[in-house]
Amino acid sequence: MSGAKYSGLIDRYWERLPVKNRKHIVTLHEGNTPLILAKNLVKEIFGTKKQSSEDSDNNIRLYLKYDGLNPTCSFKDRGMTMAVTKAVEEGSKAVICASTGNTSASAAAYAAKAGLSAYVIIPEGKIAMGKLSQAVMHGAKVIEIKGNFDEALALVRDISENYPITMVNSLNEHRIVGQKTAAFEVVDVLGDAPDYHALPVGNAGNITSYWMGYTEYHAEGVFEKLPKMLGFQAEGAAPIVKGEIVKNPETIATAIRIGNPASWKRAELARDESGGLIDTVTDDEILEAYRMIALKEGIFCEPASAASVAGVIKKKEIFKPGDTIVCTLTGHGLKDPDTAIGVAPETHSVSPDIEQVLEAMGL
Amino acid sequence: MSGAKYSGLIDRYWERLPVKNRKHIVTLHEGNTPLILAKNLVKEIFGTKKQSSEDSDNNIRLYLKYDGLNPTCSFKDRGMTMAVTKAVEEGSKAVICASTGNTSASAAAYAAKAGLSAYVIIPEGKIAMGKLSQAVMHGAKVIEIKGNFDEALALVRDISENYPITMVNSLNEHRIVGQKTAAFEVVDVLGDAPDYHALPVGNAGNITSYWMGYTEYHAEGVFEKLPKMLGFQAEGAAPIVKGEIVKNPETIATAIRIGNPASWKRAELARDESGGLIDTVTDDEILEAYRMIALKEGIFCEPASAASVAGVIKKKEIFKPGDTIVCTLTGHGLKDPDTAIGVAPETHSVSPDIEQVLEAMGL
Repeated sequence: MSGAKYSGLIDRYWERLPVKNRKHIVTLHEGNTPLILAKNLVKEIFGTKKQSSEDSDNNIRLYLKYDGLNPTCSFKDRGMTMAVTKAVEEGSKAVICASTGNTSASAAAYAAKAGLSAYVIIPEGKIAMGKLSQAVMHGAKVIEIKGNFDEALALVRDISENYPITMVNSLNEHRIVGQKTAAFEVVDVLGDAPDYHALPVGNAGNITSYWMGYTEYHAEGVFEKLPKMLGFQAEGAAPIVKGEIVKNPETIATAIRIGNPASWKRAELARDESGGLIDTVTDDEILEAYRMIALKEGIFCEPASAASVAGVIKKKEIFKPGDTIVCTLTGHGLKDPDTAIGVAPETHSVSPDIEQVLEAMGL
Repeated sequence: MSGAKYSGLIDRYWERLPVKNRKHIVTLHEGNTPLILAKNLVKEIFGTKKQSSEDSDNNIRLYLKYDGLNPTCSFKDRGMTMAVTKAVEEGSKAVICASTGNTSASAAAYAAKAGLSAYVIIPEGKIAMGKLSQAVMHGAKVIEIKGNFDEALALVRDISENYPITMVNSLNEHRIVGQKTAAFEVVDVLGDAPDYHALPVGNAGNITSYWMGYTEYHAEGVFEKLPKMLGFQAEGAAPIVKGEIVKNPETIATAIRIGNPASWKRAELARDESGGLIDTVTDDEILEAYRMIALKEGIFCEPASAASVAGVIKKKEIFKPGDTIVCTLTGHGLKDPDTAIGVAPETHSVSPDIEQVLEAMGL
């Protein structure tokens, strides 16, 4: 497979995905996202004590799977290329979803490429501006409801069952199936699964998908071990950890502000089968990780994405020398510039005079 | 070269870039961006008259080089991986740039990865919010001056000449050299150069870089033809077209709001040597193309990027059946969500009631 001629994940993992005809593929060249070795983060999180010389096998290796570099800047594109391709294959003319933002951006983009109509139901006032700008630019009909995500999703299910409109929320199994390709990519780069795979848990589709991908690939004997899956929910939106639906989920990490995850049971299965865990991280821990990733690794992710790294920091005692950890960063930081500006220091404004500029620079 | 193991453009085009030691490479896995066939746009721009059956050689082929999918969401990362790698190689501890946004985001990110300090001088009030959020998140010291880009650049030159701080504006030749890799990638995918390569022209570094890349690659006999370079400036910021410095450049396409381009002469050379042209497009034409790309191709770019497609629309009579055109989209639309929201229709807000939602959907 040549990197140069890459043309999307359905083409790349054709034999592993249930598409009937290549002519139906709707792609924006999603997938094939960077897996970046994060040495600066390792030093920051684990200190130098656990680390031997530069490239020793005894070092902990932490990789960031930067899925914010998908076409609409979130991992949702992996499932959406599948869901919209299948919608086309089945003759559908429209798609609909409920969304806190990333799903709507992705659904709208792929529908536009395919020439389908897109309807997006969003909870009022609970969506980052960047994401909303995408759905509208791609021509989706965006309908805000005076309610939360779970109410939006209920409406979408109802409409898709009674009208010839394809639901592209992650209840649509093609979404889950498309997302499993991220696990394939990790293994293809590392040559094996990592020891641990950490990721944010909101609607719980992604942890389900990764586990599906790892186990399917593993069953073929391509590689040795299976990873332990580490899922992290925001403390104010942690139904799986708490074992009960959260009526009014609250967290700064809007992309995982979900009170009743669609893939709840399967996320628990991924946790239990892999010998992993699902735990909480606080908004403060999320924001600390969010800043650390940007400052130390030069990678800007959205707040929800940082829950994976925040979780690794919280659980750092479980890792031992030589372990490989992959953290998925689910969305790009530009999805939510408001949060970034909110945590940033004030900028200086001075006259275009060299003395004043040098002083502002601290020189 | 395996797509799976891609690790940045210096590694990929190692023998063509002047880096001494692989250990110095500072990368966020930039480059290797999608080249997407835009059949819907072709239909929209050229109609069906010029088009024969689906895949005939007589069709015009328009590709979008989506450089908004670089790590900081603009093409600037191509030059910045080189500029910061060379700064590290030369023992520098800090970088500085003047920027209308994208350069600052990229400089800050790569400096963070490398552990260098970054200083960013920006013209007051002339920068899209997304971009500013990036520079501050990556820990750059951002200094706004009460002046325009050209004044900011003059200050940066002055400071870099008198302090041990590396200037990473495109006056830094390593930037231009890194950016030429985009031309290599186009040829590697198409197997030849396109007939035409269209792109926005602001500081004129990118048209210079592409032409450098195409001519270097061509000199090795890897492929047959050289493309005609088509550059497009915003009408209110068109010094090259008008043949004189523009004191107060104005355009909605902030990324190309430049009155005195650093690579002015070399852009003219690229135009003349290739038999191409540099022309203007109006803000209205830019916005029309911006919307069309998002609506028809599912690709969200920043306004400046759309100048390439706007130019192709303006000059559509010059293309003939069978021509291949590549348009570079220099930055992701999330760089500037305000403009997107500004051109979007109002969203509907209704009660979470199925009848009301169906009515809002127009069903």
